[in-house]
Amino acid sequence: MNKKDLQDRLRRIEGQVRGLHRMVDEDQYCIDILTQVSSVQAALKAVGMGLLDDHVRHCVRESIEQGQGDQKVEELMAAVGRFAGR
Amino acid sequence: MNKKDLQDRLRRIEGQVRGLHRMVDEDQYCIDILTQVSSVQAALKAVGMGLLDDHVRHCVRESIEQGQGDQKVEELMAAVGRFAGR
Amino acid sequence: MNKKDLQDRLRRIEGQVRGLHRMVDEDQYCIDILTQVSSVQAALKAVGMGLLDDHVRHCVRESIEQGQGDQKVEELMAAVGRFAGR
Amino acid sequence: MNKKDLQDRLRRIEGQVRGLHRMVDEDQYCIDILTQVSSVQAALKAVGMGLLDDHVRHCVRESIEQGQGDQKVEELMAAVGRFAGR
Repeated sequence: MNKKDLQDRLRRIEGQVRGLHRMVDEDQYCIDILTQVSSVQAALKAVGMGLLDDHVRHCVRESIEQGQGDQKVEELMAAVGRFAGR
Repeated sequence: MNKKDLQDRLRRIEGQVRGLHRMVDEDQYCIDILTQVSSVQAALKAVGMGLLDDHVRHCVRESIEQGQGDQKVEELMAAVGRFAGR
Repeated sequence: MNKKDLQDRLRRIEGQVRGLHRMVDEDQYCIDILTQVSSVQAALKAVGMGLLDDHVRHCVRESIEQGQGDQKVEELMAAVGRFAGR
Repeated sequence: MNKKDLQDRLRRIEGQVRGLHRMVDEDQYCIDILTQVSSVQAALKAVGMGLLDDHVRHCVRESIEQGQGDQKVEELMAAVGRFAGR
């Protein structure tokens, strides 16, 4: 997931959230709104996974190659924990 | 969570997603972006919970009171399943 | 999901957890152990969904039919929240 | 989380699952059983996080130090994805 891809995904997510807003304004059926909430959550999860992947491949790897991986690994695991908790 | 509250939350989430976009544009640190992703996920989860709560309190309850709860309960559980899967 | 089905699933989950224990004892590869952890999590999620479904179909419905659904709905939403948080 | 700690946690989880079984046998209240399911899920999540942490600190780090991190990173991200999906 490169920068351009990430930006496109975030733009789509922004559109989906605006769509949610509209559904609420128009008093659409709760379950349909919830389905849309779940699909925004899935899209955000994909963005989070892309960021994690990129982070491990670059920042964490470079730190380890320079013999300084400890802090990065700590930070990474904290981020995975927050991410997996939702 | 009433309609106004829901709209406010969605507006804030939209702003948070725009913030994410900006962070990516400015090449901010992956872990900081991920922390923001986790906080949007938490905000969306709160919205989903509010919608579920409202749905159970009104639609599901009314259907049950009218002796027609079966389909609503089915639909509800499917929505909870999608929601809990993220 | 009836009582017998629930008991069978829990027995299988107990066996899976014992399997995890064995994998750790034998120093198996972390990623394989993690894959097994994910599959126990999925099995537990299915049990939780079955319990929720049963709860809504019986306890919540009966309370609503007796005009006393408020506390049940509150309790249900708290349980869904804990459950969706994992 | 060392091997001994992991084994202790898994033993406790096994006991918790047996406890769940007993609760079902005794027809305890669904919501109480669900609360126990959520606490087993939390305990398993902690085990999964411990395994991931250990995996990154040892296997992934060593592979990267030997210039062969690609496959390990791929494998790691797949495991995180499965894990975060529950």
